[in-house]
Amino acid sequence: MSNAVNPIIWDRNRLRLLDQRLLPAEVVYLDCLTAKDVAEAIHGMAVRGAPAIGIAAAYGLVLSVQKEHDSFARASEVLAASRPTAVNLRWALERMRGIWLRTPTVEALEKEAIAIHDEDLAQNLKMGELGADLLPSNASVITHCNTGALATGGHGTALGVIRSGYARNRITRVYNTETRPWLQGARLTAWELQQEGIPAQLLADGAAAHLMSREKIDWVIVGADRIAANGDTANKIGTYMLAVAAKRHGVKFMVVAPSGTFDLRCRTGAEIPIEERTAKELTEFRGQMIAPVGYDAFNPVFDVTPAELIDAIVCERGVILNPDADKLNALLG
Amino acid sequence: MSNAVNPIIWDRNRLRLLDQRLLPAEVVYLDCLTAKDVAEAIHGMAVRGAPAIGIAAAYGLVLSVQKEHDSFARASEVLAASRPTAVNLRWALERMRGIWLRTPTVEALEKEAIAIHDEDLAQNLKMGELGADLLPSNASVITHCNTGALATGGHGTALGVIRSGYARNRITRVYNTETRPWLQGARLTAWELQQEGIPAQLLADGAAAHLMSREKIDWVIVGADRIAANGDTANKIGTYMLAVAAKRHGVKFMVVAPSGTFDLRCRTGAEIPIEERTAKELTEFRGQMIAPVGYDAFNPVFDVTPAELIDAIVCERGVILNPDADKLNALLG
Repeated sequence: MSNAVNPIIWDRNRLRLLDQRLLPAEVVYLDCLTAKDVAEAIHGMAVRGAPAIGIAAAYGLVLSVQKEHDSFARASEVLAASRPTAVNLRWALERMRGIWLRTPTVEALEKEAIAIHDEDLAQNLKMGELGADLLPSNASVITHCNTGALATGGHGTALGVIRSGYARNRITRVYNTETRPWLQGARLTAWELQQEGIPAQLLADGAAAHLMSREKIDWVIVGADRIAANGDTANKIGTYMLAVAAKRHGVKFMVVAPSGTFDLRCRTGAEIPIEERTAKELTEFRGQMIAPVGYDAFNPVFDVTPAELIDAIVCERGVILNPDADKLNALLG
Repeated sequence: MSNAVNPIIWDRNRLRLLDQRLLPAEVVYLDCLTAKDVAEAIHGMAVRGAPAIGIAAAYGLVLSVQKEHDSFARASEVLAASRPTAVNLRWALERMRGIWLRTPTVEALEKEAIAIHDEDLAQNLKMGELGADLLPSNASVITHCNTGALATGGHGTALGVIRSGYARNRITRVYNTETRPWLQGARLTAWELQQEGIPAQLLADGAAAHLMSREKIDWVIVGADRIAANGDTANKIGTYMLAVAAKRHGVKFMVVAPSGTFDLRCRTGAEIPIEERTAKELTEFRGQMIAPVGYDAFNPVFDVTPAELIDAIVCERGVILNPDADKLNALLG
């Protein structure tokens, strides 16, 4: 694994978080000395990406108990409130609580936080290898949003496959979408690719189908926010449009996500709730109006790509080709 | 026709141009008193859209000859140089030159400039009616880029169909894409729709397929930059992706363009050259970096939608359903 991007650095009694709000213009680490510092970093989106948030919160609990032994419950509350909808955040806090109830020591907590971090990274490295196995030589790939080291404990999910594929000389060309409206692709994925020295080009979200019509693209590689029991995959808005274009052009489509992303209680993608956010994310940019004042917008955060458009789901437990409910159940049920 | 958006106002000895660079934040007219003023407005992109540029240039010649009778050739050169690649600009100047050679009077020129303006508007109104005839009642439509009054002599092409359809109570819901990287949709189409009081919502380019999967959309309605002899249509980047998504969802796809847009010398879309522009249009926004310094981008301005994905081409001479070379030749050859 490359060390070019290290967004979460644990340093005994401080947590150093790469401030993602300032990327790509500035590389600045926030030094968090208390759980409150960490909660503010999460709430303020200095750190983002579900796994990254969970890891940061776990370290936040360590910081808290280092300073005041009895502060676990209070710190846990503060951290839980920092991003109320993040599933990994709650999961990490619960896991830390399990340790605290059995072994209420700073050492045990620190060990567990590091384990959460290490396990996420290990999963990503494993998925990177499994995904890279699927790539032909001299592959051209498109990726969407940011699924890299910045969003995880390191290496990344979809971007982890690209890292691994590039390291194994299988990838020669990467295109990454801007990912409107938040521009995670332009700001964060582009930065990670540049840090790694992987040759890559930015692409307007609407230009992907044209690119596929003009140039041989082998795979679209994306992450996932939630995967239903039949393989339908919710991911960042724009993913479904890429999958539809890929199908038309014979471009293969890969979803890369750890087993924690699967929600087998959702039978199909139709049961996955799709968050819709404020119009302002489309009508304003960094405080400037780009659409008329008062103009409305339809701003869904995620979309659902049906399993029939997915050629492979890669998780740390294995690869599911042409996913369906039986195959998912066999691997994850 | 509504008078809500009048970007080009001829007022005897001045040409008032709505400064599109300031939209939607400010509605400011530039008063052009000389051909040089008009050339600067075109060069500086205060006025944009191929038909609008041609009309403005024609009026520019009138202004010039009003002041100095012998200035026609010089003014024509200055105006021609203002946007070297705009086909309509050359066409309008040539048409004015034909008049000047026969009848070298201010009155004849003024009459011709007004005729160029009126004819463009009349074509758009005609296309508006023909296109609206194709819409069901209570139609929901998606449009892309800006094809409105701002880009033309008034009413617009694709947006003209939406204006006409709304006026005839056939359209109840409009979605317009942002249209990255220039945001003509967010800035200009949104402004026109708001001025008209047409209920509309902005949409990230990548969200259109998701919208089609969740809501009944009847038509995608777009303009064209060039149409080949077989009906393949070059239009703003992102159009092809919309067409691919529309096909998957059974949404119909309409291209609206005056007969001047057809280039029957191009047999298919493969012969239409696709301009690619600087990476900076994607990596910067209003002087701020949104991607890392030095990051590369693939930035095609147009894409080609194959005729097989187009349900109707609407031009002022008539409507071509399921376009092919024979049908285009019958109407336009």
